[in-house]
Amino acid sequence: MDILISEVGLRDGLQSIDRVLDIEVKKSWISAEAAAGVREIEVGSFVNYKALPQMADTAALVQFAKTIPGLTVAVLVPNLYGAKSALEAEVDVLSIPVSASETHSKLNVRRTHKQMIEEIRDIRAVIDELPESRRPHFSANVSTAFGCSIEGDVPVATVVDLAERMLDAGADEIGLSDTTGYADPRAVRERVRAVRSAIGKDKLLGVHLHNTRGLGLANALAALDEGITTIDSSLAGLGGCPAAPGASGNIVTEDLAFMLEAMGCKTGIDLEKLFEVRKVLAGGLPDEPLYGFVTDSGIPLGFSGSPQV
Amino acid sequence: MDILISEVGLRDGLQSIDRVLDIEVKKSWISAEAAAGVREIEVGSFVNYKALPQMADTAALVQFAKTIPGLTVAVLVPNLYGAKSALEAEVDVLSIPVSASETHSKLNVRRTHKQMIEEIRDIRAVIDELPESRRPHFSANVSTAFGCSIEGDVPVATVVDLAERMLDAGADEIGLSDTTGYADPRAVRERVRAVRSAIGKDKLLGVHLHNTRGLGLANALAALDEGITTIDSSLAGLGGCPAAPGASGNIVTEDLAFMLEAMGCKTGIDLEKLFEVRKVLAGGLPDEPLYGFVTDSGIPLGFSGSPQV
Repeated sequence: MDILISEVGLRDGLQSIDRVLDIEVKKSWISAEAAAGVREIEVGSFVNYKALPQMADTAALVQFAKTIPGLTVAVLVPNLYGAKSALEAEVDVLSIPVSASETHSKLNVRRTHKQMIEEIRDIRAVIDELPESRRPHFSANVSTAFGCSIEGDVPVATVVDLAERMLDAGADEIGLSDTTGYADPRAVRERVRAVRSAIGKDKLLGVHLHNTRGLGLANALAALDEGITTIDSSLAGLGGCPAAPGASGNIVTEDLAFMLEAMGCKTGIDLEKLFEVRKVLAGGLPDEPLYGFVTDSGIPLGFSGSPQV
Repeated sequence: MDILISEVGLRDGLQSIDRVLDIEVKKSWISAEAAAGVREIEVGSFVNYKALPQMADTAALVQFAKTIPGLTVAVLVPNLYGAKSALEAEVDVLSIPVSASETHSKLNVRRTHKQMIEEIRDIRAVIDELPESRRPHFSANVSTAFGCSIEGDVPVATVVDLAERMLDAGADEIGLSDTTGYADPRAVRERVRAVRSAIGKDKLLGVHLHNTRGLGLANALAALDEGITTIDSSLAGLGGCPAAPGASGNIVTEDLAFMLEAMGCKTGIDLEKLFEVRKVLAGGLPDEPLYGFVTDSGIPLGFSGSPQV
């Protein structure tokens, strides 16, 4: 089984760290991770740079990443305005998050569900103006899909309804994001099944998980069991809250890649090379805690990885 | 689904820490965890106390723990000599580990598989001399069941063969232990299935997992999916290597209990009360890192736990 690990550390990881990482370090990170076999990297987001100066170099990073053969270059956009910049930069994948919690959506991007659906429709229209060969893959992700730290429980029906409307508005594919680290394996199974039965199996391929409560890899396993084939993760679990030891943000790319390879899934990743990329981060973000387990304990003796199957 | 969390921190956790925890702190730990709803606690082991002074108070702890209503009091024994002490102390559960890696077995307890099987046979004979009402549950665990840091790969056939021989020699039940943190979800499924198909489903009920490579809860999920109903874990993941940040030893009781309750499994545990028990550890082992995620991030807003199902 081929599983795509999509590295989101440069976007989701860095946006939650105050320090702005130097663009040369970011380039080294992208190069090294691509050289380790990571096939998709979300290099940044086209957002308001006054609010998120960490993302100000996204266009330059897209330009750089596009020179790496075989690498899928992804970005996040919050709205049509960001999408236009992404299209100008000729990204391969463009994704927009829509929060299932409307309270969170209003606070985060000052838009209701209805307004976000309109945004998706407008982005679709702009993409369709491009020649077919230049149209990026357009993904729309349901964020806070497993619960919201403001609203609490998010009903499955809300997630399904939103997924249907986002697809109808023109997204190529839907993803589910556990923005708040509220998911558990049962909820992952339940929600993946519910959304897939509403929009079709081939329209929900990816999940974005956080390890806030330590269940990240168990949730990833539940997603794999349901047939999910794309999993977002962040090198060294970047983006964890420094005030909470061990409470990493995104699931750790190194541990995820190790789990998948150990299970006989093919990620295309060379684990030892991937582990080396941490040095780039350690150099560029000297005060930032780097999370992960397998990088401390090492690969098991006699580990043969995916060729077992 | 009822799942039994068996707390092993007082044995597996403390044996890997140099400092000897004061018996009064151990008693507070046992009381507090039992009060939080933990139904089985391995309070120590009857081993050579010159080699493991941390375990010298095991008999006194058994005596204390037996006064707590409803608590199952378990101990580990390496041999017949230890088993006799355990029987004298009138434990509820007595378990003996046998390493699937014969190299590890020889180094660890200076005995071959054949000698360990004889040990089990001898323990069975001594148990059977007791009146039926006073016989403890006798569990034999295959340690290094997922790989060995000396031998590397441990063949499934070796694990199955050992399980069969241990049962034949008189163990009531077999457990599988990932002593080295080498397991992955696929291996857990494969080995649980293989052993169960050889010895019967009702003869393999428990697994003992480490979180060395971060896969602990994913492995626990794989075990649950196979119908395993007893999972060992350690409060605050005690027993981690202090040289490897984040690389906890056993899986963390708090995170495991949270995962199970979130999934709708019944553990009988009050999560908030369980989290409070960490203070006992923090007081008694001030320099020891306490692992776990959910205790840092807190229970999700609106979390309803197992009553959902």
